Amino acid sequence: MRSALELARLGPVADPNPRVGAVIADAAGQVVGRGYHRGAGSPHAEVVALAEAGSAARGGTAVVTLEPCDHTGRTGPCSVALVDAGVAQVVYAQSDPNPMAAGGTARLRAAGVAVEAGPLADEAAALNRSWSFAVAAGRPRVVWKFAATLDGRSAAADGSSRWITGPAARADVHRLRAEAGAVLVGTGTVLADDPRLTVRGPDGTPVDRQPLRVVMGERDLPPRSRVLDGAAETWHARSRDPSTVLRQLFDRGIRRVWLEGGPTLAATFLADRLVDEVVAYLAPTLLGGGPPAVADLGTTTLGQALRLRLDEVTTLGPDLRVRATPTDGRGS
Amino acid sequence: MRSALELARLGPVADPNPRVGAVIADAAGQVVGRGYHRGAGSPHAEVVALAEAGSAARGGTAVVTLEPCDHTGRTGPCSVALVDAGVAQVVYAQSDPNPMAAGGTARLRAAGVAVEAGPLADEAAALNRSWSFAVAAGRPRVVWKFAATLDGRSAAADGSSRWITGPAARADVHRLRAEAGAVLVGTGTVLADDPRLTVRGPDGTPVDRQPLRVVMGERDLPPRSRVLDGAAETWHARSRDPSTVLRQLFDRGIRRVWLEGGPTLAATFLADRLVDEVVAYLAPTLLGGGPPAVADLGTTTLGQALRLRLDEVTTLGPDLRVRATPTDGRGS
Repeated sequence: MRSALELARLGPVADPNPRVGAVIADAAGQVVGRGYHRGAGSPHAEVVALAEAGSAARGGTAVVTLEPCDHTGRTGPCSVALVDAGVAQVVYAQSDPNPMAAGGTARLRAAGVAVEAGPLADEAAALNRSWSFAVAAGRPRVVWKFAATLDGRSAAADGSSRWITGPAARADVHRLRAEAGAVLVGTGTVLADDPRLTVRGPDGTPVDRQPLRVVMGERDLPPRSRVLDGAAETWHARSRDPSTVLRQLFDRGIRRVWLEGGPTLAATFLADRLVDEVVAYLAPTLLGGGPPAVADLGTTTLGQALRLRLDEVTTLGPDLRVRATPTDGRGS
Repeated sequence: MRSALELARLGPVADPNPRVGAVIADAAGQVVGRGYHRGAGSPHAEVVALAEAGSAARGGTAVVTLEPCDHTGRTGPCSVALVDAGVAQVVYAQSDPNPMAAGGTARLRAAGVAVEAGPLADEAAALNRSWSFAVAAGRPRVVWKFAATLDGRSAAADGSSRWITGPAARADVHRLRAEAGAVLVGTGTVLADDPRLTVRGPDGTPVDRQPLRVVMGERDLPPRSRVLDGAAETWHARSRDPSTVLRQLFDRGIRRVWLEGGPTLAATFLADRLVDEVVAYLAPTLLGGGPPAVADLGTTTLGQALRLRLDEVTTLGPDLRVRATPTDGRGS
């Protein structure tokens, strides 16, 4: 399973499909096939590994990081492929959280294949955290990023917000943008800041795979906006409703959204409980003025504060990165 | 010197005087006297150690964490006491930063005593950081504490600010209050929150030694305010000028001020560059409303932000404590 997980990691992180690795051993326990999923449109990991194994798979064991699917999409069900190859035993780590694809275990067992579930399940699930969340929830996982001063200002009074944080924090933003299927802002941010929203490497050049750039809101975008520069695909979602936009993004195969909106858009998502993770970049500066990181959330008392759990605190050059998860309850 | 430093640590941390330890060895190198300074009004460390050594000090060595004073205050100069005791050599760590007391080395050398300076000087200086700063600057070192949400709110819209942070952070505030000679707020905080401003132990009972409670501002205090409850000394400084109040506090023997004022008082001290250290308690919550941690600092652009250097980030229960030092320049 350790080898299968290593294989899975080779897959694309921001794909509509999960990252999956598979190792086939023959009846004598010798590894005869290896495979991983290269992303939507490519064959599943099991199919790749079975192809390498050929007839040596007969009577052998398939070790897979995710429960084999029972779903006919662009490829046939993996459960059928494993049965057809004559595999005697299947060991998988994470159970399939996708209601559309589940049922693989039942089909395998019905065909007389021994199935063992669970080894390193947590590690396998961590590989596909956003995907697992998304297929279960029917919407992408939303990570809200903001940069602010130590006193919570996301820009100065004149609106200037470049750059609150230093180069190390900005490079980190590009790394984390790259893990998302889409980068989302509101029309207000495009009109005010004209951001590019692409993932760029340390030398400033865009990387090969770019997340979908999404601008939500009803206002028209200026035709010369940088988000319309063709450096990556851009979708103008003419809606103010986060749920609607997220549903449409899910249907487009987006499993993780990197929300970089301004205070108002952030407040809308937060108020609707549609933020699953917060990544805050805090600069050790004080402004004492300028727009706050979050606009009105409708709270009037401390007890109504939106509570988070701190997951991780890291220093990035002179700045601080705080990762936190909203918890269900409001404060006491 | 290691032993002398250990002795020094036994002294009171929030005293007008520095913490000093002294060890006397006789001519054969045998330790014959030990002493530390128990605070203003008590004999100096050298005098205590010499008293224990008696005539055995003659021809011996005095190891002291701070350069012996040449100042006649409530006690005579230590330089004279060491010469009178017939000590042949003096080794000290930190040079005396106090212009009023310096000159000890010159007097000792003039009397034929060998003087060596410098071993573990940094460690000795760290013991008396606020005192060293204060005697050199002529004002107490100011540590500004604030508690805020991750989006920089120090209270909810209804003014409620108890408790933004959890018990571990609040206990930490009491520990750090205890290191200060005075706890300072504005009249506005007394009128709005009616705080006690005492140092209380984990069970809520006030500790023995309490910092001076200082309320600055021109408005009268309600006679039933908790700061007037007699649990600790309180001074109402009827001034709005931070420099004036700090000078008066220095003259009262205060070397370290723990500033707990609201956004406006904090902004006044920050704008006057009278904050030497920032201790921020950040709760992992979002309010999206309510007063900010810092009121108007007169900044309009990012370049005017007050810059700090992060010194330390610690988690305290669910909360975060950030210690930072304002740097001289404003941002670029």
